[in-house]
Amino acid sequence: VRAELVAVGTELLIGQIANTNARWISERLAELGIDVLHHQAVGDNAERIVASIRLAASRTDVVIVTGGLGPTQDDVTRPALAEAAGATLVRHPEIEAELRDRFQVRGREMPESNLAQADVPEPGRYIRPERGTAPGLVVSVGATVVYAVPGVPSEMREMMEGTVLPELAEREGPRSLVWRTLRCYGLAESAIAELLDDLFHEAANPSVAFLAGGGEVHVRLTAKAHTREEAAALLEPLEARARERLGDHVYGTGDETMEAVVGRLLVERGATLACAESLTGGGLGERITAVPGASAYFLGSAVTYGVAAKRSILHVSAETLEGPGPVSRECAAEMAAGARRLYGSDVAVALTGAAGPEAHGGAEPGQVWLGLDADGVEHQYGFRWPFDRELIRRFAEMAALDLVRRHLVGLSLRG
Amino acid sequence: VRAELVAVGTELLIGQIANTNARWISERLAELGIDVLHHQAVGDNAERIVASIRLAASRTDVVIVTGGLGPTQDDVTRPALAEAAGATLVRHPEIEAELRDRFQVRGREMPESNLAQADVPEPGRYIRPERGTAPGLVVSVGATVVYAVPGVPSEMREMMEGTVLPELAEREGPRSLVWRTLRCYGLAESAIAELLDDLFHEAANPSVAFLAGGGEVHVRLTAKAHTREEAAALLEPLEARARERLGDHVYGTGDETMEAVVGRLLVERGATLACAESLTGGGLGERITAVPGASAYFLGSAVTYGVAAKRSILHVSAETLEGPGPVSRECAAEMAAGARRLYGSDVAVALTGAAGPEAHGGAEPGQVWLGLDADGVEHQYGFRWPFDRELIRRFAEMAALDLVRRHLVGLSLRG
Repeated sequence: VRAELVAVGTELLIGQIANTNARWISERLAELGIDVLHHQAVGDNAERIVASIRLAASRTDVVIVTGGLGPTQDDVTRPALAEAAGATLVRHPEIEAELRDRFQVRGREMPESNLAQADVPEPGRYIRPERGTAPGLVVSVGATVVYAVPGVPSEMREMMEGTVLPELAEREGPRSLVWRTLRCYGLAESAIAELLDDLFHEAANPSVAFLAGGGEVHVRLTAKAHTREEAAALLEPLEARARERLGDHVYGTGDETMEAVVGRLLVERGATLACAESLTGGGLGERITAVPGASAYFLGSAVTYGVAAKRSILHVSAETLEGPGPVSRECAAEMAAGARRLYGSDVAVALTGAAGPEAHGGAEPGQVWLGLDADGVEHQYGFRWPFDRELIRRFAEMAALDLVRRHLVGLSLRG
Repeated sequence: VRAELVAVGTELLIGQIANTNARWISERLAELGIDVLHHQAVGDNAERIVASIRLAASRTDVVIVTGGLGPTQDDVTRPALAEAAGATLVRHPEIEAELRDRFQVRGREMPESNLAQADVPEPGRYIRPERGTAPGLVVSVGATVVYAVPGVPSEMREMMEGTVLPELAEREGPRSLVWRTLRCYGLAESAIAELLDDLFHEAANPSVAFLAGGGEVHVRLTAKAHTREEAAALLEPLEARARERLGDHVYGTGDETMEAVVGRLLVERGATLACAESLTGGGLGERITAVPGASAYFLGSAVTYGVAAKRSILHVSAETLEGPGPVSRECAAEMAAGARRLYGSDVAVALTGAAGPEAHGGAEPGQVWLGLDADGVEHQYGFRWPFDRELIRRFAEMAALDLVRRHLVGLSLRG
């Protein structure tokens, strides 16, 4: 099966937004083994949308159109799709009733123009929306199936995962698709690829894909089968084998970030956390508090960017600051102990280093020391990363969170 | 003039990256008043690239191809471009010499395959690269001009700003383009659009465009003329009028961020800064330290997420915490004073608030208080923003930085 994407929206052509839908859909199709040979983007112009859909239909098996399904006058994907398919738009009473209901529930008057969203090409069918109000549409242009889904990313993803991707998987035989993402930290993408090399090459179904970024690697496992249960049964042994190889480098699954995992573990253990930061300038605390409800376990972070603040606020000793210096194992240890004392937390983690581009505190750019302090535990370890300033800071935050995670789940600490 | 973009790269079609080049180029072309009617993306396949270029050339005046100009075997834009134009690739001795030089300087052996980058279509011409090694190419396909530039964003931008955009501006008459971006804070995009409404509609040259995001608005002024000097002379009175209307809401120009402006002002005044943060969790310090060299003026940030830390570390009074509460004018004032004392800084700024989704400290989501403390200055003001958690935190950081800026340049403080 070959597919082509057509994005509709003048906002793409004037550069107001990037076509991130194309990226997301392409990635999902690649996981299904479906080749995408072209992307197109076209403005809110019915004639050009018709031409783009026809062009795509002339050279591919499946076309996925995103955008232009809304209720306003510049949303013209619906009539364009009907024209390209040689179909007639027919008002659908069930969609109309649902649209009227949605407005009534909110106590708002529905503009009559909104009813255009209840028009469905005949022959053709629609995809019922859960989040938004715009139904998706499905028509045939010759032997090609054309799906039209909303341009709003969350609404697009809902219809893709709920209807379009499962139908495409079915075209190749099996009917149901099950995904699982293993979130890994502490191994490079190439190392993970090597560890899972045989699983990667073993079969197209279930399949293994890698996505690296921000210091972590996501291993995405996908299984297709006739039923969800069969797909899950296919996935299970693959996941078990992958987990066995990856071990405690798997810190979480699905959408759960490292900071959310750390937060969950702290809540489960009824423990509190504080930080001491230098090179990250507050980025570690910022990340921890990106999780709603972090106030249940996060007490704060002492950002001591200057040497004087390390001494006066965290009580790092003059001996350490003048000896091994502010970027050292000793300083990380004393910062962690200082933060734990200052905030009265159960666990404290500290970061100090030289983010670059210049050397700092006698340390070369990229040198980072981490310290953990908890009841009966004092642990430090160092890293030297050949990255730029921004990346070193992001990687340091991730390393500190992982150190807390390993401590909380009783894993061996790095170093 | 109408233009079309063709992005080359299988990485786009498998969803490894989003086509951000298309967004950037489209935005620049829109500023020049050039209509973009289609975007295409196609993989590293010579036959399909030829077809895409021919399709684009058949319906537009200018085609801009990005990507596929590198030295490896899967980079096939160069031969595809020659084929689409009916041209022959001829090795260009000057490019060859430069390529050999670049490798020699680094003491590395050049793979012979690299010399493909010295091939230029005849008839056709090339654009000399400054950053990368891949020259851009320019050919004609019928009456349409086709530019090919590298896919690496920095190399693409260099050739677009240095050659392609000025040439496109010239097609419509004048030869030189001058841009100026005024970075504004404290006014909504709609308010700025209203203030500059007459300038916006006055003329297509010089022109005014707006770009909003992250709590700030960029006003981009563009002038075209026969020479750079004439274009600058056109821009100058427009910029003066725009600045007069926008007043001290213009915090900087070009690429200089708010945190960089604050850093520059602190260095100029030989002053130091410290922060006290609550709802931002360290994001303000993170942002300040994103500027290399921040250690010259930034001492640190006391992130006191919990109430106990506000009391024990910043010495916020029990009276305040139990009376108006942790999200209050009084608490912001005491946090700022506490941070200034704790770090011994010249200036301190404090942030406290409820980022949501839940109410916090008796305050509704979106309520934020800021405090500034400096020699002879104590100032606080509050905001209530109807945004989500992430946006409230970003806006609060921006507001705090702007407060410091206004203090440092002696402007009236908001409130």
